[in-house]
Amino acid sequence: MEVIERANQEALRRMLTADPVLIDVLPARDVLTDLGERTILHAGPPIDWPRMCGPMQGAIAGIAVFEGWARDLKEAEALAVEGAFDFRPNHDFDAVGPMTGMTTRSQPVMIVENRTTGNRSYCTINEGLGKVMRFGGNDAEVLNRLRWLRDVLGPAMGAALRQSEGIPLKALVARGLTMGDEMHQRNVACSGLLLRALSPELARVATDMEALAKSLAFIGGNDQFFLNIAMAMGKAIMDPVRDIEGSTIVTAMSRNGTDFGIRVSGTGDTWYTAPVEMPEGLYFPGFGPEHANPDMGDSTIVETIGLGGFAMAAAPAVAGFVGAGAASDAALFTRDMGEITVGENPEWTIPSLDYQGVPTGIDIRLVVESNIAPTINTGIAHKEPGRGQVGAGVVKAPLACFEAALSGIAERLNVE
Amino acid sequence: MEVIERANQEALRRMLTADPVLIDVLPARDVLTDLGERTILHAGPPIDWPRMCGPMQGAIAGIAVFEGWARDLKEAEALAVEGAFDFRPNHDFDAVGPMTGMTTRSQPVMIVENRTTGNRSYCTINEGLGKVMRFGGNDAEVLNRLRWLRDVLGPAMGAALRQSEGIPLKALVARGLTMGDEMHQRNVACSGLLLRALSPELARVATDMEALAKSLAFIGGNDQFFLNIAMAMGKAIMDPVRDIEGSTIVTAMSRNGTDFGIRVSGTGDTWYTAPVEMPEGLYFPGFGPEHANPDMGDSTIVETIGLGGFAMAAAPAVAGFVGAGAASDAALFTRDMGEITVGENPEWTIPSLDYQGVPTGIDIRLVVESNIAPTINTGIAHKEPGRGQVGAGVVKAPLACFEAALSGIAERLNVE
Repeated sequence: MEVIERANQEALRRMLTADPVLIDVLPARDVLTDLGERTILHAGPPIDWPRMCGPMQGAIAGIAVFEGWARDLKEAEALAVEGAFDFRPNHDFDAVGPMTGMTTRSQPVMIVENRTTGNRSYCTINEGLGKVMRFGGNDAEVLNRLRWLRDVLGPAMGAALRQSEGIPLKALVARGLTMGDEMHQRNVACSGLLLRALSPELARVATDMEALAKSLAFIGGNDQFFLNIAMAMGKAIMDPVRDIEGSTIVTAMSRNGTDFGIRVSGTGDTWYTAPVEMPEGLYFPGFGPEHANPDMGDSTIVETIGLGGFAMAAAPAVAGFVGAGAASDAALFTRDMGEITVGENPEWTIPSLDYQGVPTGIDIRLVVESNIAPTINTGIAHKEPGRGQVGAGVVKAPLACFEAALSGIAERLNVE
Repeated sequence: MEVIERANQEALRRMLTADPVLIDVLPARDVLTDLGERTILHAGPPIDWPRMCGPMQGAIAGIAVFEGWARDLKEAEALAVEGAFDFRPNHDFDAVGPMTGMTTRSQPVMIVENRTTGNRSYCTINEGLGKVMRFGGNDAEVLNRLRWLRDVLGPAMGAALRQSEGIPLKALVARGLTMGDEMHQRNVACSGLLLRALSPELARVATDMEALAKSLAFIGGNDQFFLNIAMAMGKAIMDPVRDIEGSTIVTAMSRNGTDFGIRVSGTGDTWYTAPVEMPEGLYFPGFGPEHANPDMGDSTIVETIGLGGFAMAAAPAVAGFVGAGAASDAALFTRDMGEITVGENPEWTIPSLDYQGVPTGIDIRLVVESNIAPTINTGIAHKEPGRGQVGAGVVKAPLACFEAALSGIAERLNVE
């Protein structure tokens, strides 16, 4: 239908003209409008405590202790059961969060502004690998790291960014694609490029050399540091696409560990959900599929902008890490994603494909017609609270979400 | 012949077991044994003033002013003509230098130690792009930058490295190969990885925040910063291979802008030379082949260890930069270099080739038999003194060097 084609071209235009810039880091309470006193933002579509998976319940207990709402994990759990907390999706607050996606008042959030449209998006700072809150970790080590992010690194990054002109992300990501990153499970290049841009500014605002050294070492020692920035960037790019009448372009894919949900431009902020799938991947030593929680996190926003599994061809080394087959087969994933997208991004190109742009703009019609589900590169959390990451893999977005969304669009266009 | 095969396997073994670590930065006079008062080390095989190309003469005039041996470029030139300076190859002092390769007493040199064998190699700090001394630049801007490297960055890097355990380079380069670097014309990943490792140490020894910020910005703003470290690493890896009786493995390739020279293990430190060729490549706006100087520099040491043109498959983005054809053809160069090498490096692998190791150990017999010359990725200097870089390209090592070296080996083995 012509109305749909036109709407989708407009959606693609908005995506390709976005100009995301990392501009600041501030406490969530200062920037997330209407964030309540005991509100806990989580990844994925809306969900209540009883239906939450183990790692998300574990993260919630941990973050409640971190915020001082409970003395210990046990009390925190009891409060959660009693309904003392207000659980809301990050996406309702212009935010995104990886895996469990905990965002609360005192956590610092990185701010990405889309300078084309003026909207801003938010994401917490990446904690590193292993036992971390986004994978359900909640012990003293996890909480102490969050305190250091809140008290030291967050304020330092904020001060550094405020005295800079911000760090434009479009060109940085373009560069990262020529350096083997796909910006979901592989961010080592972009993390390094970010450190290059940020480290002189961090030095200029530093007063304590040892604190500066620790900040530089933390960023430099975390290959996934850029992931949370890529996510805020994805949200900043997609938010202006959320309301185009008739458009069948996916504006968000997200999972809370129980449900997988998508939003589509032509149906605004409606979530279309289906039971989330289990990633297929590789496990860290000592772990296997029997320990794995189903797929989780807002990080799939990067696939909606053509990165992650869609840009696998740029990152042959990630194919092995996520158990997606031979490195030389990485290009096949990108080719497949070309079947379900409406365009390519001429500014985000892949050298090994002779500078073909990443497949951009998931059209739910193409997904349903082809039965090709979006490929997502993801981390795998332990299914029990408090345990952390156990592997990485590839997961398919459930086709049922796309079928339901297509019905939703048809209804609105009266073509049912 | 069996003696040659055995010798070459020993050469390969020494190369693959090398453990190069960046350990310090110190003034050349403190570490280059027997460096004379008015000695100027240059790239390539030995050469006298009258036969030197324009950019090398320009660099010599500049470095003489920098060292205080002349008041201005004119006086420096006159002194050079009179024989006031002692010109010696870097390779005679365990050193290497990019392009013109100027190394003199007061310049800081980075020190790479091969921890397997204990030998050390040296290279000056990379100056950045454009009008720089290694490309023949010699004006006030060039000299002021050298002063800052001498007075600020060099001492800071030295202090930072001395209080660390050194930066192991083998693993860092392995990582860089998964991030699109080939370590000759593309070092953006390794430069970033180096900054990650070095920046916390730089912060710990810093006393002046603005100086630290400038140092971080200089390293972070120079995509080729790692090149000089890769070169010192190459020298540190190859030096223990210099004296294996009967070995036909190339231990150094180098050019002074007039002659191309190679050294072969079985003939020790003898240079086999031939007229250097002109790179074929791409020029910066406003320049063309008519401005180009023939090939120059010690940087070809990286090809002797399997990087640069030999690792082109790892760096599809470099193919376009050096004008070597389509990015998707980059693998062809690596395949060709497999024809003239005796092994692969199992620790330096290329994801897109399903982790095939880089072709390692150039055998002059294979070069002569196949007529396949080593492929070198190189920068292109303006042929006039004082002008700087005008492009980048690919150059072939002249076959005549390899033929002459093969005769030399045959003579020593009495098989002529």
